[in-house]
Amino acid sequence: MVLKVAAVQQQVSSADKLLNLQTSSELVRQAATQGAQLVVLQELHTTHYFCQTQDPALFDLAEPLDGPARQHLEQLAKELNIVLVGSIFEKRAEGIYHNTALVFDGQAGLKGIYRKMHIPDDPGFCEKFYFTPGDSLPNSAAFAPIQTSLGRLGVLVCLDQWYPEAARLSALQGADILIYPTAIGWDPADSPQEQQRQREAWTIIQRSHAVANHLPVIVANRTGFEKYPNAAKSAHNSGIEFWGQSFICGQQGEFLAIAQTNDQGPLLAELDLSRTSRLRRIWPYFRDRRIDSYKGLQSRYLVAKS
Amino acid sequence: MVLKVAAVQQQVSSADKLLNLQTSSELVRQAATQGAQLVVLQELHTTHYFCQTQDPALFDLAEPLDGPARQHLEQLAKELNIVLVGSIFEKRAEGIYHNTALVFDGQAGLKGIYRKMHIPDDPGFCEKFYFTPGDSLPNSAAFAPIQTSLGRLGVLVCLDQWYPEAARLSALQGADILIYPTAIGWDPADSPQEQQRQREAWTIIQRSHAVANHLPVIVANRTGFEKYPNAAKSAHNSGIEFWGQSFICGQQGEFLAIAQTNDQGPLLAELDLSRTSRLRRIWPYFRDRRIDSYKGLQSRYLVAKS
Repeated sequence: MVLKVAAVQQQVSSADKLLNLQTSSELVRQAATQGAQLVVLQELHTTHYFCQTQDPALFDLAEPLDGPARQHLEQLAKELNIVLVGSIFEKRAEGIYHNTALVFDGQAGLKGIYRKMHIPDDPGFCEKFYFTPGDSLPNSAAFAPIQTSLGRLGVLVCLDQWYPEAARLSALQGADILIYPTAIGWDPADSPQEQQRQREAWTIIQRSHAVANHLPVIVANRTGFEKYPNAAKSAHNSGIEFWGQSFICGQQGEFLAIAQTNDQGPLLAELDLSRTSRLRRIWPYFRDRRIDSYKGLQSRYLVAKS
Repeated sequence: MVLKVAAVQQQVSSADKLLNLQTSSELVRQAATQGAQLVVLQELHTTHYFCQTQDPALFDLAEPLDGPARQHLEQLAKELNIVLVGSIFEKRAEGIYHNTALVFDGQAGLKGIYRKMHIPDDPGFCEKFYFTPGDSLPNSAAFAPIQTSLGRLGVLVCLDQWYPEAARLSALQGADILIYPTAIGWDPADSPQEQQRQREAWTIIQRSHAVANHLPVIVANRTGFEKYPNAAKSAHNSGIEFWGQSFICGQQGEFLAIAQTNDQGPLLAELDLSRTSRLRRIWPYFRDRRIDSYKGLQSRYLVAKS
């Protein structure tokens, strides 16, 4: 089965969520016009990357699962008859907010959600302030893929991409494709060499999930510079330069399409899902996993004195 | 702490184990002369890659842990005052044979062994016939690194390289460096495009272990074409073209050194072990692992109906 898929790379230029959502919609429409059956939007595409600072007022950006962004995206997926992966800052309850991906499937509407499990917290990425780590949904295990008419989507979000555990658990639950809506960029104070190493590490780790699990991977990252909102108050630098470079790779980690750093728009590729079966026959990693010896993966650290 | 390390890429040209061991020694001496403090030999460097076929007579190639190869390598490490990683076809008992890496530390002699845990079995790589999968050593957990005067070596062997679980467990037990003695090559019947994808997948997955764990990685692979011993009897192709390309990468997966396909010799690089600490502060993946949600990694498969 060959699928035409798209990752949408967007520059968020406005403080107005509705305006940003309209840009997202426009780019999704472009992708659909080019034949995309599955379209992936980047992480938090309706807002600036507000997590550069800790500000209680910014919780106002959140909306409930059934809020305007969901309604808008659901309608769009129905109209275009596509599978669409969107991303919202979700208010689940007072004091419980999530970084949540939504999966819509044409006329069927919302098919599932994924609440980001691994939450970063480092200078410029204050996500632990805003996002409660994802918990498992009722009747669903952690990292369960979402069933759609195009296959089971292993939707994970941004920092999850650095964890082979997340990709593997999604694969073990039958994912057909791994999907990473993302917001990652450089600190402009880092050297070009360090920036290059970071971006290369980021492509390597995500391509490795393709290799280890024989699954295609779709990554949608944001682009553009976003200024730090209150630079005077902080030791943090001037802002984040999101590095774009959204990409789509096949089941051996081979690049099928890759965007430039500053491009805005849909990036398209064709995935041949039948390659997973062919590759798993001749490179049967799943057959040989030493599940008798992996218990330690549930530990924080394993050095006896620690 | 900056370490000078070497991966030795060797073409095994003889059926005579002693002759091959002398070649290994010569290449280790070259590495030491160039200042290497830690030298890694490839998988099964004293023999042809005999696993292309199932032949009970070939168990004669095995030797006990305290056999001639161990004695030879131990003496060499003492003489050169280096840490040396060698590889043998180990006879542990009648009917129990292993693919075993040995770690020597200068005057201290043998410091530890690692018996390959993940055993391949596919056309041309009939390892399940020869090798009993590694079990844990007394007083040691699976994938425990080996303590040497230069740090804790996370020694894994060949197929282990495709398993993020193995690298992670070694890292969680305090490994300072990941090491992969390897014997991997192409089926000459595959297309150049497929060969390229395979080799690229192999570098991606091993570089990803560096990225995910912030550890340097040393990979020693064999080179040269080895003919299938009895082509007339089998549907298998003419032999294996070992693809060389031994490499050493730093803690972000960045290449420090990479050999050509057909080179024979030591490949050297300098590792700055202090980078691990610096990287783990600003990209603290270990802090955020969702150990509450990783239980499924101990399962073969997780789809309810399977």
